[in-house]
Amino acid sequence: MPAIASLECSRCHQHVSADLPQTVCPHCAGSLYVRYDLDEVKKNSTRPTPGGLQNMWRYSAVLPDVEPVTLGEGWTPMLRSQRYPQLYVKEEATNPTGAFKARGMSAAVSMARHYGLKKLAAPSAGNAAGALAAYAAAAGIEAHLFMPRDVPFANYLEGVAYGAHVTLVDGLISDCGRMVAERKDAEGWFDISTLKEPFRVEGKKTMGYELVEQLGWEYPDAVFYPTGGGVGLIGMWKAFEEMEALGWVKPGKRPKMIAVQASGCAPVARAYREGAAVSKMFENASTFAAGLRVPKPYGDYIILDVVKESGGTVIDLSDEAILDSLLDWARNEGLLLCPEGAAATAAYDHLIKTGFLKPSDRVVLFNTGSGLKYVDMIAEAMGLKRPAENESPEEKKYPERSPVGGIITPV
Amino acid sequence: MPAIASLECSRCHQHVSADLPQTVCPHCAGSLYVRYDLDEVKKNSTRPTPGGLQNMWRYSAVLPDVEPVTLGEGWTPMLRSQRYPQLYVKEEATNPTGAFKARGMSAAVSMARHYGLKKLAAPSAGNAAGALAAYAAAAGIEAHLFMPRDVPFANYLEGVAYGAHVTLVDGLISDCGRMVAERKDAEGWFDISTLKEPFRVEGKKTMGYELVEQLGWEYPDAVFYPTGGGVGLIGMWKAFEEMEALGWVKPGKRPKMIAVQASGCAPVARAYREGAAVSKMFENASTFAAGLRVPKPYGDYIILDVVKESGGTVIDLSDEAILDSLLDWARNEGLLLCPEGAAATAAYDHLIKTGFLKPSDRVVLFNTGSGLKYVDMIAEAMGLKRPAENESPEEKKYPERSPVGGIITPV
Ligand SMILES: Cc1ncc(COP(=O)(O)O)c(C=O)c1O
Ligand SMILES: Cc1ncc(COP(=O)(O)O)c(C=O)c1O
Ligand SMILES: [Zn+2]
Ligand SMILES: [Zn+2]
Repeated sequence: MPAIASLECSRCHQHVSADLPQTVCPHCAGSLYVRYDLDEVKKNSTRPTPGGLQNMWRYSAVLPDVEPVTLGEGWTPMLRSQRYPQLYVKEEATNPTGAFKARGMSAAVSMARHYGLKKLAAPSAGNAAGALAAYAAAAGIEAHLFMPRDVPFANYLEGVAYGAHVTLVDGLISDCGRMVAERKDAEGWFDISTLKEPFRVEGKKTMGYELVEQLGWEYPDAVFYPTGGGVGLIGMWKAFEEMEALGWVKPGKRPKMIAVQASGCAPVARAYREGAAVSKMFENASTFAAGLRVPKPYGDYIILDVVKESGGTVIDLSDEAILDSLLDWARNEGLLLCPEGAAATAAYDHLIKTGFLKPSDRVVLFNTGSGLKYVDMIAEAMGLKRPAENESPEEKKYPERSPVGGIITPV
Repeated sequence: MPAIASLECSRCHQHVSADLPQTVCPHCAGSLYVRYDLDEVKKNSTRPTPGGLQNMWRYSAVLPDVEPVTLGEGWTPMLRSQRYPQLYVKEEATNPTGAFKARGMSAAVSMARHYGLKKLAAPSAGNAAGALAAYAAAAGIEAHLFMPRDVPFANYLEGVAYGAHVTLVDGLISDCGRMVAERKDAEGWFDISTLKEPFRVEGKKTMGYELVEQLGWEYPDAVFYPTGGGVGLIGMWKAFEEMEALGWVKPGKRPKMIAVQASGCAPVARAYREGAAVSKMFENASTFAAGLRVPKPYGDYIILDVVKESGGTVIDLSDEAILDSLLDWARNEGLLLCPEGAAATAAYDHLIKTGFLKPSDRVVLFNTGSGLKYVDMIAEAMGLKRPAENESPEEKKYPERSPVGGIITPV
């Protein structure tokens, strides 16, 4: 594991030291990136070979040199469907706490323990809170979580069961963020908000390393990423940059990065369409894809930059289209995607239809979490209730099942 | 992949051919075991080496020679806790559908597709139904599920979302089983009930292969298995037998097999205490560990035999003890066990206390599924509700958090 050389601002590119815990750039409040001496890394290590650690710490050569707080996150399967032979689903549901947020929190809590921090706080759309609560429990650190009152019930239960201090807020993640910011100094909390500390990106960048390794150290043509705060997309782009510097990936065109949002909360899609460099607060944000309910992402400028540089795009889908795709994948593939993942599958269908992508393009699509974390939300969207005794279940019209069927697993 | 030599009855040891689909032994109705020519397997294959397939089909050398219907099941992590250095948690929550039932259904549905079966039916305590629904969807086969009306809601939703035909029954899994038996001939269903067809055991036996491989091809001293129908325990014992015949495992004492039940439904524990060879119907079965609510397991005689031969035991825990252990592991390890898994952790504490096991004994304990499938059940057991606006959350007394903390991941 390499020493951290410095933390570099994503906006003004000034550097600060990582010897003490840092939040955002002291000069311009931009998000900070962890930088290593990649020439040293290149000299001292090679890319992973088959076998080895079966979790994200297999990439310890490019992760901070600390003792990990780990629950076995990462190194998730890539699934392929027979219906879409060039579509690879990166199945993040198999992570601890059932969502990809585990990666970011494993890295961030490892560093928090390393720095000796005792109280962590975070606003969350739900899954980040669950993950923080779990890793804080594993590390023996206090966690203070702020979530919208109407989060999926699983997220509330997780927080309480893992022993965190949970506050449900009558508002959105932006309101939760404000509460953390207001109280953190008085309470002695370290703020672990999305892109307001450098290590959640470090954890999530492992998704970029993994997808390239799982494709035989080659880039796909496009990556679909359900985008709330955008940490994963930003992290993957950082990973590609590092892998190229290290000579780990066959040189070639980086994938088009497709940021997927829900039409009920699409600040980045709107900014992209308007050609703006940053997003504006999306008023009355509402979607059952709870993780996408981020009305003003802190790292909007980075997301927009990455999308443009990659030749990708930002699109948003209605909740109806998302639910249709979710049920399509459940009924025909045997995968219960999370709504955010189903936004990505819906987006894939859409961009094939518009011709933005061809069926022969090799695509990696992130199912960022387990549909099992959303049973209340999905049931509500479906209008599904458990029938009472002597009540027959309502006959619903669901999408037809295709006779082609299922998933094949390559990796 | 080896050809199936025959199916052998677990009770009368007569053989039948696997050329056509079989249910139970035509002579005595015992469960059938799949037999291969292990000398041939030994000649033609070696045990897996690091790398290779990251799912249960890495053991294709000892699985039926068919095209798998797979969602990436198996090859799950082993987690270790710092509090219990010799305790290995086999984390089955990472399976597709969030439970170990995926393994059995992957094998059984693969064979069903191979045989050309078009309609599968199963009674289930919940998770087997979810898994069957998913694999049937992936295979393009019809699934007919019968579950108690009060299953965890996630199991009901899974069934419907995956496009299965779901019947909620006012009764227990035994009542569900009767309904399948009564209707299957008229409806043309193939009955895929626990231990009434040979391939769910084949899938679940991979847990035995995996735990031995993950311990460096050595046996642990004991295995804790939350036991409803007992398929996994039976499958693992079969795996140990095969591995010895193949020379894959270092010769030595097989692990003590510890079957764990809930006191509210403990037919096997009762039979074990009474020295009976089979169990009696457990009346008024009730426990929030829904998967253990099997009042009269079909394979009770095999479970009891295996436990005795292994020098293990059968114990049962109250729902209170199970919930306590569940919260202990959530708060101190960052793992949200399913209630069945928490029965096993409670049983471990108990058997350490009684001296049946020593802390230095190397133990593998199965967390058979994700706590996220049980948010309704766990919340009810905790008395946890989402507080309404302007309502402050109730102050509950939960177990203290230990300052030791967390999981470490070895494999
Ligand atoms: C399941 C899921 N998918 C996607 C997202 C968005 O992730 P990011 O903030 O990295 O854009 C979230 C965030 O909460 C989420 O929980
Ligand atoms: C989570 C869970 N654990 C354990 C069991 C019991 O499994 P078996 O039937 O193999 O004994 C079940 C069965 O439904 C289950 O769902
Ligand atoms: Zn700056
Ligand atoms: Zn027989």
